[in-house]
Amino acid sequence: MSDKPKLIRDTDEQARTQARDLISQARFGSLAVIDPETGFPFVSRVALAVDTDGVPVILISRLAKHRQAIEQDNRVSLMTGEPGKGDPLAHPRITTFCLAEIVERGSQQREELRALFLETRPKAALYIDFPDFDLFRLVPQSALMNGGFGKAYTLNAGDLKTPAQTHPSDNH
Amino acid sequence: MSDKPKLIRDTDEQARTQARDLISQARFGSLAVIDPETGFPFVSRVALAVDTDGVPVILISRLAKHRQAIEQDNRVSLMTGEPGKGDPLAHPRITTFCLAEIVERGSQQREELRALFLETRPKAALYIDFPDFDLFRLVPQSALMNGGFGKAYTLNAGDLKTPAQTHPSDNH
Repeated sequence: MSDKPKLIRDTDEQARTQARDLISQARFGSLAVIDPETGFPFVSRVALAVDTDGVPVILISRLAKHRQAIEQDNRVSLMTGEPGKGDPLAHPRITTFCLAEIVERGSQQREELRALFLETRPKAALYIDFPDFDLFRLVPQSALMNGGFGKAYTLNAGDLKTPAQTHPSDNH
Repeated sequence: MSDKPKLIRDTDEQARTQARDLISQARFGSLAVIDPETGFPFVSRVALAVDTDGVPVILISRLAKHRQAIEQDNRVSLMTGEPGKGDPLAHPRITTFCLAEIVERGSQQREELRALFLETRPKAALYIDFPDFDLFRLVPQSALMNGGFGKAYTLNAGDLKTPAQTHPSDNH
């Protein structure tokens, strides 16, 4: 018998659904990268859209520090799930560890993600086609979800992927 | 004449005040550390109190991933400034690069910061004295503030320190 509390709960279908919702319903999040100049972890706010397979998509300028960071090291983490009123630590949130992948200009994928991003964020039409802006997919590798005090879960890439049967039109 | 936009504005007194307010008025923030197991940047939500000199204070358990990370590498960044309604990227926020320093148990400083933390977060009384919980001061080294679109500033440690004359009772 151990006197240690069980810190991580078993990942069940309810946890998977909560995790995917915390990502797909977010319109912005906190993105952490490694600052290429100093080695410090660097966190900043990013606007988000979410691809049909559950992958977050961001739009960033070459001039932004986090873009320069990603070009050096594409390992990032993204926290989503904003607190409402009351205790901010009682509100569910998820940190998703991702590999950032640039969406190639001129590709069919970029056309689709461009439309998706502008649906979420119409004002980005002003700059999305500027030559220094690119879309990146943040491909989830694993995640740590805090569903509120004492409700911690770890999730793998498969747990986070949107089930195909719920998106019959998904042709990626 | 350059056709490049000026990306970083000159730091004036108004910017310094806004920066200090974005930190001191925050009750929680996004803390980025380096995951010691994987090397990924790891962002999570933390509750905050702010010391009289403007230094953010957090309370963390030895069991938490970000605590283990800080023990390996005490370079962190903290984003504060939560969006209200409307465009989340139009709301001011600041990323403060800090060195995390443990507050020694039994010290006078810990007594003061314990009281300060409980003022901000009374519910922490339930666990603040547990043996695996410690207070850490996140001592600012520099910061990057985004005061809204096109209003970026860099700040140094001196810019972020609360002016002494406004805190006559400060005896640190």
